[in-house]
This record gives sequence, structure tokens and C-alpha cells, in this order.
Amino acid sequence: MRFLHTSDWHIGRQFHNISLLEDQRHVLRQIVDLVRERQVDAVIVAGDIYDRSVPPAAAVALLDETVNRICNELQVPMILIAGNHDGPERLAFGARQLAGAGLHVVGPLWRRPRPVLLKGRHGEVAFYPVPYADPATVRNLHQVEVASHDAAMAHLLEQVRSDNPPGRPCVVIAHCFLAGGETSESERPLNIGGADQVSADYFRDFAYAALGHLHGPQFRGAEHIRYSGSPLKYSFSEERQRKAVTLVELDAAGQAAIEQIPLRPLRDMRVVEGALDELLAKGKNDPRREDYLLVRLSDTHAILDVMNKLREVYPNVLHLERPGLMSRSERLEMSRERLKRGEMAMFEDFFRQVTGEGLSAEQEKALAACLETLHREGGN
Amino acid sequence: MRFLHTSDWHIGRQFHNISLLEDQRHVLRQIVDLVRERQVDAVIVAGDIYDRSVPPAAAVALLDETVNRICNELQVPMILIAGNHDGPERLAFGARQLAGAGLHVVGPLWRRPRPVLLKGRHGEVAFYPVPYADPATVRNLHQVEVASHDAAMAHLLEQVRSDNPPGRPCVVIAHCFLAGGETSESERPLNIGGADQVSADYFRDFAYAALGHLHGPQFRGAEHIRYSGSPLKYSFSEERQRKAVTLVELDAAGQAAIEQIPLRPLRDMRVVEGALDELLAKGKNDPRREDYLLVRLSDTHAILDVMNKLREVYPNVLHLERPGLMSRSERLEMSRERLKRGEMAMFEDFFRQVTGEGLSAEQEKALAACLETLHREGGN
Repeated sequence: MRFLHTSDWHIGRQFHNISLLEDQRHVLRQIVDLVRERQVDAVIVAGDIYDRSVPPAAAVALLDETVNRICNELQVPMILIAGNHDGPERLAFGARQLAGAGLHVVGPLWRRPRPVLLKGRHGEVAFYPVPYADPATVRNLHQVEVASHDAAMAHLLEQVRSDNPPGRPCVVIAHCFLAGGETSESERPLNIGGADQVSADYFRDFAYAALGHLHGPQFRGAEHIRYSGSPLKYSFSEERQRKAVTLVELDAAGQAAIEQIPLRPLRDMRVVEGALDELLAKGKNDPRREDYLLVRLSDTHAILDVMNKLREVYPNVLHLERPGLMSRSERLEMSRERLKRGEMAMFEDFFRQVTGEGLSAEQEKALAACLETLHREGGN
Repeated sequence: MRFLHTSDWHIGRQFHNISLLEDQRHVLRQIVDLVRERQVDAVIVAGDIYDRSVPPAAAVALLDETVNRICNELQVPMILIAGNHDGPERLAFGARQLAGAGLHVVGPLWRRPRPVLLKGRHGEVAFYPVPYADPATVRNLHQVEVASHDAAMAHLLEQVRSDNPPGRPCVVIAHCFLAGGETSESERPLNIGGADQVSADYFRDFAYAALGHLHGPQFRGAEHIRYSGSPLKYSFSEERQRKAVTLVELDAAGQAAIEQIPLRPLRDMRVVEGALDELLAKGKNDPRREDYLLVRLSDTHAILDVMNKLREVYPNVLHLERPGLMSRSERLEMSRERLKRGEMAMFEDFFRQVTGEGLSAEQEKALAACLETLHREGGN
């Protein structure tokens, strides 16, 4: 049994008011290509299919396009579970009809575990979907006293274990936060205050745990208890993550061999640092100048219209930081005396911005005389 | 070929801030029962499946339950098209996968007509779904100059006609406003200003036209060009409509025999008129006192807390009209002199409301003295 494990597609997500739909289409097409090239038997998407419970219509159309390619054209079954971002009822409309076409969508939590049974090269494998559910939902639906995400997951996995007959290889698909996992800035916490963590130990005796929620690829506790991570960077905090899908091969004994296959973004998301002039000069020959950028300028003086200057070279600058400028509180403390002394320097900065040159000695003299007059007439 | 034609389910609709979901479940179950009892070959829903492009999750769950019963348990195929209330992309997610299970959902307008071919007792019948599309959408998608709903529908049906081979019985399913059709207050106009009407003539040479949009059952131009109407009343203007589904039987020659099968609402929607005391007395023995009511009170005097009094007997009074009370503009015109003359009468009304009795002669005298004092001291 060879399957692709991916998660956290967040289709329809915006970043700094920019739609990422084209970027998402670009990586989803790579996933479709991999399904064909690597001849996988199934594709698992471990939650957060959409970014919101009510996704925009264009996001629905992109998911539709993707599942058509995989389930219909390539005839490869898919299993999708709801994550904390998804609306479970909406996601699972028509689930029984969709399942007949090999598209298994699991929205609301089950009352009794129901595996998706798929034939692999070495016989049947059971995939148990555990869609995202908070402890209160588990408590109400299963009439058990579970107060934490940890207790809820322990209960659900116990149900899975007793449902699966001995000897049948068993993969669980879940959307949760494993204790010790590395977070990114783009994940929405499951719970305020840290009561959302689940022990990796519960997953140890399954053939593989295909997890979603954390956006960085990683495993916890053992190699086969794994987050594939999101297919795209969704925050600058993910700059150094290598986004990928996980290819899993279960052998006859149910042992998992794991390969991370990198994805290439349409536009990368990264941080660039330096002085404005340097960055503008470098950018002109930068083949990746359309990347989504956080720019951290080292210049210490005021610069006119800096975002537009940057965007002429780097069209997708999304955020600007000016660590070289004094902080706002420092500026507020600046006394009127200091302001006066600084007028000449500020005008010189402005002049340089507009003309590209510094003030000549003569100009400087004229400016000084002008400031003198202004101060006298203004009474300060 | 025997099929049920229904439309305008508007699942998730609210009426006067009351959810109609339970009422909708009640009639949808009757439709499921009819599918079984009358052994139909297909179920057609001609648009406005949901009330909104983003339906509430509970509405999605109710549609899911209904299609599971019909398509999975009874194994009867369904054809659903988007109406002007539906979000076409959202409605049609997974359409290719759903079709494999006999659930044909047509959201966005096609580029080329694509019939759903179903086997009946006398051979194959083509059902051509024409989901709702405004003229601009038809213009852009088909590159034709159509300025009106009429011209757009003429163009689309011409495409259907040339797509369907001669001799194959052909049913069209459309969501539109036929010229001369009787409207109800619960339909949302397709266009402001009346440019939304379509000639019934275009539909004449099809075996049957299964139409949606108008909420009252009716045909236009010929018996087989027909609105089934909505399964429930969605406004008090529909009080006298008999809500139904339409059972259509096409014979070997493609001739349609038509039967209207009434649906029984969980709670009817009706108008009651009379004096408050009369209505309260009658209501106590009214087996239908839980109906959704518009109450039109004939009483001409002010009544305290009238809505709560009515709701003690009729729990689902949704709207109250007081034609017996003078109109607001009349009240505003009332002069101070008239107000003064009316004080005694107003107090008497109030006293009767609180104590259940009129003023005695003695009480009346005391009140007159009291009013006299008040007027003298207040200077008016």
C-alpha cells in the first residue's frame, strides 16, 4: 500500500489581503502529478481542507477540480477529514454518494469508528479517519467524561483499536496538536491556554498516523507518527520550512517506509534585509523577485513612499519593517529643541530622495537662512 | 418514465425569525414516502434547493439526509439544479462523483448542454437541466448577444433542441419566470422592473418542462409547461395555495400524464380574523392552533399586551394587524382637544383590561373629579 499523506491545504486562504488561490492551484497540480508519477494507491488529506467553514466559491471550485483529477481521471481514492478550520456538515454534504466514487469525506465525528478499507499490493489496509472534534463534542456524542483533548483522543483511538481486527494493518488519520510539536504563526490554536495537546504515545501501535494541524513537516515520538505539513508557507515564520508531501509505503508486515517529496511554490515566502538602495539594485536581477516578501530595511533615515519604491522591483512586498528607525516612543520623547536641530538633516534627507543628490554648500546656506527667518517669524 | 417534479425547497429558510427546518423535514419525508409508494423512476428539483447561497449547516444536513434516503436507500436518481437563491459552485461540489451515485447536481450553467439520460419503462428519456443564469452570464459564457431573460432562455433551449436527437423524449428542467405566471410574496424577483419574464412558447415542443421559481403550483401555455410550486407556504399570501408535488408519467409516445399530489404541512400558514375575545375562545378547541398565524384583530380599542395574550392560545402567531385601530396618520392628526375628551374613554379601556370589568358609576365620578383636578393644576 503506497499512499500520499498531505494536510492543511487551507484552500481560499488570504495572506495580507492577497488571495493565495493561484499559489494553491500551483501546488495542488504538483500533488496530482505525483499521484500519477508515483502510482499511489490513495491520497490522505488530514484536515483543514478549506481555510474557513464557509469557503469562497472559487475555493470550492478548486477543490472540485483537484478531486476530479485524482478520483475520476486517475481513479485513485481520496480520504479527506475535517480540521478545526472546516465546517464539518458543509464539507461532508453527499458523503455517502461521494464515497461510491472513491471520494471519502469525513466531516462530523462518528458515533462508531468506520474505516475506509482499501486494497494495496499486500492486501487490505484499514484507514480510520478521526475528524477534528473538541472534547465537548466527544463528551456529548459518546457519553464519556473527557475534559481535555488528550483524554478525548485517547478515548477515540481506543475505539479504533477495538474496532480493527487483529492482524489488519491500520492507519489513523487525525487532526490534533501533539505535545512537543513545533508550531508556526499560521495555525489557529485549538484551545486557549495550552489544554489542546495530545500525547503521541496513543498513536504508537498503529502502522502509521497521518496527522494534520501543524504546518511544519515533522514527526513526534516515532517516525511513523507524522505531520506532512501544509503544502505552502502561510506565514513568514515558515520561511525556513521545506514544504512537502509525505509518501508512505506499507510493506507486507505493515512497516512504513517514509519519503518527503518537496513541493515548489509559484511564489516563495521569505524575508529580505538590507538598505533600500542595495535591495533595489539586487532585486532587478533577482529571478525570484515576485516572491511574497517581508522587507526589513536597515536604513536609519526617513524615506518617502518606500512601499511603492520597493514594489516597483518586488511586486509582492507584503510587509515592511524598519528596525533602523527609532521606535515610536523614542520619537514621542524627542524634545522640541532636538526637533529644531534636526530640521536641516531632515530636509537634506528629503532633498536627496527627490533629486538623488545631497545639498551643495550654497544650498545649505540658503536653507539655513530660510529656517532662521521661519523661526523668527513663527516666534519659535 | 414516471418522475416526481418538485422545486423551491428553500431549505434553511426563516419566516418572521422562526426556523422552518422542522416543517421542511416534515414535507421532505412525505416526498421520500411518495418516491417509494408511487415507485417513481426519478426525482427532479427545479432550483432554489437552499434559501441562500451559504446555507446554515443544519440545512445542509437536512438535504444530505433527504438525498441519502432517495438515492441510496431507494436507489432512485435525483436531478437538482441551482435556482436564483442557490450558490451554484457551492451546490455543485463533487458533482462528478455524486453523479456516479445517481445524484445529479447542476450548479453553474453549462457551456454545452449535457442531458442526464435515464431509463424508463418505455426506453430512454433525456432530462436537460438548465440551471438559473442571468442574461449577462449567458452572454459571457456563450458569446451571444442576449439582453433579456427571454432571449437568454430562447438561446439555451435552442441549444437543447439541437443537442437532442430526433425521437428521444426530452424533458427540460429550468428555473425562470414565465410571462403571465402568478407570483407570491415569497419569491425574490430575478430582475427589478419586469425584464425577467420568459415566454412559455419556447417550452412547447418538449415532452415536459419541469419549472421552478414560482411558489404556487400552476401551468402556463400548456398543461405540460408547469411549476410544481414550493412544498410549503413561505408567505401569508400563499394561504389559499394547495402545496403539492407533481407526478408525471410519460407514455411510449412521450405524452405526459400529470397528477398533483398534495403535501400536508406540520403547521399550516393562515390568516385568522375577529375580535380578541372571540379568537381566544375559539382557539382553545382549535386542533390547528399551532399553525403559523397572521392575526387580524377587529377590536377598535387599545389592548394591553395583546401578542402575549394571543400566544397563550396560538403559540405561533407571527404577525398582528389591527385594522380596527385608527391609522397612525389619523392618530397624529388628533388634536389636543380631542385627546382631552378621550381621556375618560382611554382610562376605561385600560381599567377593563386590568380588572376585567367596566367602571362603576361611582368610579367614573371619582375619575372625572381626578381628571378635572389634574387639568386645573397642569394649566391645561
